[in-house]
Amino acid sequence: MITLPFAARTDGLVGSVIDSSTSLLAAQTHDIVRFAMGSPAPDSIPSQVLAALAAEELTRPSSYDYAATEGDPMLRSALLESLRGTSDETTDDRLTITAGGMQGLDLACKLFVDPGDLVVVESPTYTGGSAVALSYGAELLEVATDADGLDVDALEEAVAAAGRAPTVIYTIPTFQNPAGTTLSPPRRERLVELARRWGSMVIDDDPYALLRFAGTEVPSLRAVAGGDPLVFSVRTFSKTVAPGLRCGWVDADPSLSPLLINAKQAMDTCANMPAQRLVARFLAGGYLTEHLATQRAVYRERKAGMQAALSRHLGDRARWTDPDGGFFLWVTLPGVDTQELFPAALAEGVAYIPGQAFSPAGHFTDALRLCFATTDPERADVGVGRLAAAM
Amino acid sequence: MITLPFAARTDGLVGSVIDSSTSLLAAQTHDIVRFAMGSPAPDSIPSQVLAALAAEELTRPSSYDYAATEGDPMLRSALLESLRGTSDETTDDRLTITAGGMQGLDLACKLFVDPGDLVVVESPTYTGGSAVALSYGAELLEVATDADGLDVDALEEAVAAAGRAPTVIYTIPTFQNPAGTTLSPPRRERLVELARRWGSMVIDDDPYALLRFAGTEVPSLRAVAGGDPLVFSVRTFSKTVAPGLRCGWVDADPSLSPLLINAKQAMDTCANMPAQRLVARFLAGGYLTEHLATQRAVYRERKAGMQAALSRHLGDRARWTDPDGGFFLWVTLPGVDTQELFPAALAEGVAYIPGQAFSPAGHFTDALRLCFATTDPERADVGVGRLAAAM
Repeated sequence: MITLPFAARTDGLVGSVIDSSTSLLAAQTHDIVRFAMGSPAPDSIPSQVLAALAAEELTRPSSYDYAATEGDPMLRSALLESLRGTSDETTDDRLTITAGGMQGLDLACKLFVDPGDLVVVESPTYTGGSAVALSYGAELLEVATDADGLDVDALEEAVAAAGRAPTVIYTIPTFQNPAGTTLSPPRRERLVELARRWGSMVIDDDPYALLRFAGTEVPSLRAVAGGDPLVFSVRTFSKTVAPGLRCGWVDADPSLSPLLINAKQAMDTCANMPAQRLVARFLAGGYLTEHLATQRAVYRERKAGMQAALSRHLGDRARWTDPDGGFFLWVTLPGVDTQELFPAALAEGVAYIPGQAFSPAGHFTDALRLCFATTDPERADVGVGRLAAAM
Repeated sequence: MITLPFAARTDGLVGSVIDSSTSLLAAQTHDIVRFAMGSPAPDSIPSQVLAALAAEELTRPSSYDYAATEGDPMLRSALLESLRGTSDETTDDRLTITAGGMQGLDLACKLFVDPGDLVVVESPTYTGGSAVALSYGAELLEVATDADGLDVDALEEAVAAAGRAPTVIYTIPTFQNPAGTTLSPPRRERLVELARRWGSMVIDDDPYALLRFAGTEVPSLRAVAGGDPLVFSVRTFSKTVAPGLRCGWVDADPSLSPLLINAKQAMDTCANMPAQRLVARFLAGGYLTEHLATQRAVYRERKAGMQAALSRHLGDRARWTDPDGGFFLWVTLPGVDTQELFPAALAEGVAYIPGQAFSPAGHFTDALRLCFATTDPERADVGVGRLAAAM
């Protein structure tokens, strides 16, 4: 009796892979080393500072009112100030506050993707990004990546082979999820040129750029495009402050603001006010700068710890990426089916996300994503040891 | 160069009416009586209790983590407990926590509405509800309402005239926004029968049912349908606790849960955690019961105050509804164009929403919505006096 048009759109989504991992995890009674989630560890959440800010803010009735759809003015101005001098520096007329980065992606697809449109995604890519494009009826075109990020030559060939221009190119340019790689500056230039030629929008999903702990900064895609409206930038505080706040922003051409406001009104009216005020105070109080400095050092050490553990336990059976920031290592285990391995790994007491989950076409059966951000070197050694035992 | 498929979908949305009211309001330097917004007044927000609960909750890192997409278990169990014995009593397998009622509507349309589908809306209806249906490409069929809510005979005729069954019937059955009217129990039965016959989903958007201050309770549409999966219920804490928390829920057939989780993952991953925890503690601590008892008395007095002011100042030139709960009076001023009147009213120092904003077809040019919930009787008298002066 009920027609469920959405059912067709969820075919092939990999949410279920992650869901089943999560419920398997919950069902385990023994201690698990959790390399699976892409969120900061409990000890990386500035909960004491946030609680102190909450004590100042949350006695005011206005902290619980509807916010303006484009975002609370207090957060908007604190954010503009905190971005000054960074590659993401921007202006008030370009900002929309969102419920995390995910809603930025939902807004982008609501504005730009119609059923049947071609959407380029990186191979591998962030599951949530490809899922939202699919939920608007996109046809996905997976394009290879390497150590320098999206392979722009392969992109040009793939688009030529498809015989039509993509409506959207979806990229995670910096410390990519899941691969950890960064799109090189020359490729950023080239990507923007191609998008210009094709009339494609570039969804520039960059949650990790502020978590650089090595190497030198690269210009943002927005900076490379020099104000061209084709770059639609999605940002979030989920990785830098806390994911549960569901607070992020979109930086887009001012001409899009009225559409973004209309679209967001039909999604959730506004982002939640207490979280917007907490983040505003966190930025205005200078805590983000301090917190990032601490976290970068932590993540640098944890990446090295995870790589050392991989060398120790899997040196001859695996290869892995070497990111300059972010949360993730992408590990390839030639000859191993990581999806099949998963239950055995869980039984040994270690969780990860199988590579296939990051490819709508189901590539990367021999790869997996490890989040190093949540685990100190001693514990990483235990986890990777268990992974080796499971193999 | 940029294609904006969303542009077409926003044509005819009335967001702009409300936006321009809001910015006009902000621009005013003198004191305005605000009858326009549909949110609780600052003195109706339990900010002291919420701040005390925040002080207990928000020192914990887990308060800032990703929540489960279906909602934090603490909130889910507190909610189930607080619904026990009400007409909205439900079970765990039917619940999805949402970012307010608006996201419940977005989820419903994402699941059920495809471009060109026929969606029945009440005339007048909640702007946000018709806007979200339009954003999924719905064709709207406006059906008249009267003092007993949606006119089910008119509904049957309108569907016969349309020559095809509606995919969705969107109703605000209790203390309707904007009219304040309640769908009578016999009409609830009839509505469910018609939906069954047509295979239509009923989106049952009921934010106000707990704010009854007169009359006797009516059964929820879900209770009337007796477990039939065609009723999709959208609820929120925006009117009963605070709108800025962006916390609500969907009560739907368990078969829909996996689809709801997939759809919500592609919207915002999860609802924000601090707000979920605050609401959970508010419910578990018994504060909602207490707060509702206080608020019902306040709103009863304010409705009476607003009606008395209307009698005094506009007794011979207006008629208005008499709701048993909720926030709104629907006022008809025969011969007056309330959209044209708006700037003059604002200049006098009173704000309202013109009737046309609640009708996609632009009916109700001589009507307006007044929110009585935010204004005490003395102030309501000042505001209605100004409205009379503007006329």
